[in-house]
Amino acid sequence: MEEKVLHAIQDDYPEDFAWCYGCGRLNHEGHHFRTGWIGEKTVTIYSPEPKHIAVPGFVYGGVVASLIDCHGTGSASLALHKKNGHHAGEAAEPPRFVTASLNVEFVKPTPHGIPLKAIGVVHEIHPKKFRIETEVSANDELCARGEVIAVVMPSTFIQQK
Amino acid sequence: MEEKVLHAIQDDYPEDFAWCYGCGRLNHEGHHFRTGWIGEKTVTIYSPEPKHIAVPGFVYGGVVASLIDCHGTGSASLALHKKNGHHAGEAAEPPRFVTASLNVEFVKPTPHGIPLKAIGVVHEIHPKKFRIETEVSANDELCARGEVIAVVMPSTFIQQK
Repeated sequence: MEEKVLHAIQDDYPEDFAWCYGCGRLNHEGHHFRTGWIGEKTVTIYSPEPKHIAVPGFVYGGVVASLIDCHGTGSASLALHKKNGHHAGEAAEPPRFVTASLNVEFVKPTPHGIPLKAIGVVHEIHPKKFRIETEVSANDELCARGEVIAVVMPSTFIQQK
Repeated sequence: MEEKVLHAIQDDYPEDFAWCYGCGRLNHEGHHFRTGWIGEKTVTIYSPEPKHIAVPGFVYGGVVASLIDCHGTGSASLALHKKNGHHAGEAAEPPRFVTASLNVEFVKPTPHGIPLKAIGVVHEIHPKKFRIETEVSANDELCARGEVIAVVMPSTFIQQK
């Protein structure tokens, strides 16, 4: 049975912030990463497309990095939204984060053709800044570790209309 | 006039290693990052596609990370190939690297619609391991800094045929 995140925070992002190539539900050509809670941790499940290879049989590292990136900002949004008294799936719009830094350690070649599972632990640095530690595994084998520093999206990121 | 890398190391990768979604010339759906020398530094120039946005007007961080990633492995390949007495554009097959770690600091939102230029400085850690410091700029404005540790591709990365 394919695992699926039921209540993803990205489903609730305001429309103006739902165009991300990584996780925007309105970007029809993007990855559509979706991040939700699994107990006290966060989870994103993603099956790379056939084109997303480094060499045949293994996943391109930039896609693993992208997964860790959006999993990080999504996890930060989940955490702050929860702290604000809300849950994914409610009508309330969650806060939108951007990535200040992204670190990825590639532990072993990531096999292609298996759904990747990113599991995150969220640490609050201050009310607008979170650190997310993520492990990406395939068939329960650890392939990559990541750390994202996510900050609430500054107003400079919003294009003048 | 559009700037272009003339002699890119990825043009010379052996066919078996030219399928990378980031920099493989044979992956028709990929980014086709191409990396060459510019004096003692390395350069990759890339124009993100319309879909590669974080929010409208700004480039998706995962694509910046991907650029830094393949720029790093390409730069390491350039450096070792040169050390071995070869130059991009020769018939000799260059060494192929993989990424051990990738760190990206997002300095400011990366504007979309402007070619991105990644400039790298290559440091040899040991004969099979290189550290590449990269700066990504748009219109000469620094948008992101990156560091890649690249190692010669291990045999475990080559799929059994």
